[in-house]
Amino acid sequence: MKLGTTGRTVNVGFIGYGNRGIGQLNTLLSMADTHVPAVCDIHADRAENAAKAVEAARGYTPFFTTDYREVIARDDIEAVMILTSWQTHIPIAIEAMRAGKIVAMEVGGATSVAECWELVRVSEETGKPVMLLENCCYNDVEMALLNMVKQGVFGEVVHCRGGYQHDLREEIGMGDINRHYRQDNFRHRNGELYPTHELGPISTYLNINRGNRMLTLTSMASKAVGQHAWMQQHRADSPLANVPFTQGDVVTTMIRCVNGETLLLTHDCTLPRPYSRGGVVQGTKGLWMEDGRAIYLEDEHQGPSHTFQPDKDLLEKYEHPLWKEYREFGLRGGHGGMDYLVMRAFIESIQKDVPFPIDVYDAATWMSITALSEESIQKGSMPVAIPDFTSGRWMNRPARPADMFSLDVVRPEVFED
Amino acid sequence: MKLGTTGRTVNVGFIGYGNRGIGQLNTLLSMADTHVPAVCDIHADRAENAAKAVEAARGYTPFFTTDYREVIARDDIEAVMILTSWQTHIPIAIEAMRAGKIVAMEVGGATSVAECWELVRVSEETGKPVMLLENCCYNDVEMALLNMVKQGVFGEVVHCRGGYQHDLREEIGMGDINRHYRQDNFRHRNGELYPTHELGPISTYLNINRGNRMLTLTSMASKAVGQHAWMQQHRADSPLANVPFTQGDVVTTMIRCVNGETLLLTHDCTLPRPYSRGGVVQGTKGLWMEDGRAIYLEDEHQGPSHTFQPDKDLLEKYEHPLWKEYREFGLRGGHGGMDYLVMRAFIESIQKDVPFPIDVYDAATWMSITALSEESIQKGSMPVAIPDFTSGRWMNRPARPADMFSLDVVRPEVFED
Repeated sequence: MKLGTTGRTVNVGFIGYGNRGIGQLNTLLSMADTHVPAVCDIHADRAENAAKAVEAARGYTPFFTTDYREVIARDDIEAVMILTSWQTHIPIAIEAMRAGKIVAMEVGGATSVAECWELVRVSEETGKPVMLLENCCYNDVEMALLNMVKQGVFGEVVHCRGGYQHDLREEIGMGDINRHYRQDNFRHRNGELYPTHELGPISTYLNINRGNRMLTLTSMASKAVGQHAWMQQHRADSPLANVPFTQGDVVTTMIRCVNGETLLLTHDCTLPRPYSRGGVVQGTKGLWMEDGRAIYLEDEHQGPSHTFQPDKDLLEKYEHPLWKEYREFGLRGGHGGMDYLVMRAFIESIQKDVPFPIDVYDAATWMSITALSEESIQKGSMPVAIPDFTSGRWMNRPARPADMFSLDVVRPEVFED
Repeated sequence: MKLGTTGRTVNVGFIGYGNRGIGQLNTLLSMADTHVPAVCDIHADRAENAAKAVEAARGYTPFFTTDYREVIARDDIEAVMILTSWQTHIPIAIEAMRAGKIVAMEVGGATSVAECWELVRVSEETGKPVMLLENCCYNDVEMALLNMVKQGVFGEVVHCRGGYQHDLREEIGMGDINRHYRQDNFRHRNGELYPTHELGPISTYLNINRGNRMLTLTSMASKAVGQHAWMQQHRADSPLANVPFTQGDVVTTMIRCVNGETLLLTHDCTLPRPYSRGGVVQGTKGLWMEDGRAIYLEDEHQGPSHTFQPDKDLLEKYEHPLWKEYREFGLRGGHGGMDYLVMRAFIESIQKDVPFPIDVYDAATWMSITALSEESIQKGSMPVAIPDFTSGRWMNRPARPADMFSLDVVRPEVFED
């Protein structure tokens, strides 16, 4: 693939080269209007591998380091992408903004409400914007649902569900060789650790922070027995075989919005199960369910009454215009194409100097759910107020563009095959 | 069908002849070892119709009345079956026990925790037992799941879900001609109005009140817009077209058990949707999901990895022994056969003078969830403690018989074709 350019070149420092970093650096390098002068990972071998990836794609060796401060201090970058451990996204983002850099953060949850506020305030004070790279907002299914919600296909939306239901026992149980932050979090925390894959798309359906907002949540955690049972069966000689895991196997979180919708989030990563984000969108005209890929729309129903039908035909009928164009252009990047779109939204918003479609208020709000759910669980499922990180602006902020870009459409002419 | 008898005749007064009463009186009359000397409904036409049903089946006209007190006062009955409005089950049950009668109650939720305590205390003081006729505990699917849980097929059970997800807008919106208590409840209450169809079976899986108990719950209600939207579209000239409905369209309730399991209940009756009890049983070895009729069991998985498989083969493999016998005998009664089984459990327990498999403690505990969920919602989803109606006996009460009968097996010889 030979790349062309239309947008001006965006110079990006890349921080964090774990599994996610490997994929997303390739995505970034596939865009001809980006330049990557510096890369970083806390592990020296990974930092070097990141540099090699740039060299392989672009023919030059970028600066590489194990100290992210050396990246954010550089004058030859205007933006940083942060793909480190969950708990370091916000601190690095704050330092980067103070060093004058625009920020993209990979997803994860916050460790406190305070750090979310600091993220917001530093962005406001420095004038440097933050985008959360919530790729699921750009997935074909979620964007078709967004399209349907915006067209009123579900009627008035009343209830949404989603989850991160992903059997990660093997990854969490890797033992000494594991460099993954997940293990730390599952050994020491107990909450909705990873809310944004479902909460992001739901927030686009419900205009959260743009005419609507989440008011309160309550969380409940089951006992934590799945990871231990797996260790006993599969890694009986691991140092982790007899350590306690604190993270409840199934954590459920109920959220109520000011416009009366309720949300249900499920975190479920230490029991055997097929992957599912467990999506549900339900309104006065019908509902869609991810599990079983089923839909029931009163006005468009075909087949026997009072039965779901497969969602395929209706999701195709309501495919998002952006995705129609994207399919013609040719999908690229990881996770079925959504990784490319979310990164493209970041790059193009910078080029056009327009607000990010997923901005610092969204990032703070969505990430805060993790810390708030931990608080609720520790208090015996007490309801906890969800802060208004927009400081009242949510009442009058304009709706997010329906295509989840700040621009009208993605620009396929950036690329030449 | 010519009926025979083996058990002694049980004399039952039948109270409440709405839709549910019509079906269940027929079920009762299909059993040759029952006698129905008196029937009752608050509406005179229905009381007379109940008498006609007895006459058609048995050749005699029973006493019939619009005053249940005239039934429970009679000397020729030892038990009453109560199939009236939700909010009158417990008051009539209490009066019946005080009049010396054994009680069967149809399902529903309680209006207060106090009336649940009174139900328990009056039963303890009078020595008269109460059975809740929770038919779903006897359904083929739920009993197969019970069998699987008891055999450890799911490993250690961690999380269960269920719901009453039933589009009742037309019934609720019937207007002046409606004699149905549901309309009252949906116009004036807001909570988990109907928890027992899912909570009953789940309680059998988790040994609630028998070594385990539910500790706390928190509930959240969505806005209530579905019924009003339906009235506007379909009954614009009804007196109900512009009255407020208070019952949230989707009410979710999280419950934590003392043994660490969490439950999720969903009440969803005023939006368009196919019927589902939304069951989930999830443990350290896999999970079953009602929606999509899907199962994933790590130890028995067939087909592509990380995918659900249809539950049919495994539910057949683990079919409950009672249901195998029942299928050979021939299913009868409503709702796929479960109505017959639950009533048979009631009659046979009386004949043998053994405790009911679903007793007054189960009835009080399950029904109290309704009042507790209303309290939680009114307090902004505050957690609410679930009373221990067994007064500590739950710690040492023996497990319920695996076949959900007090006896070993249902007695097919009661019937002759």
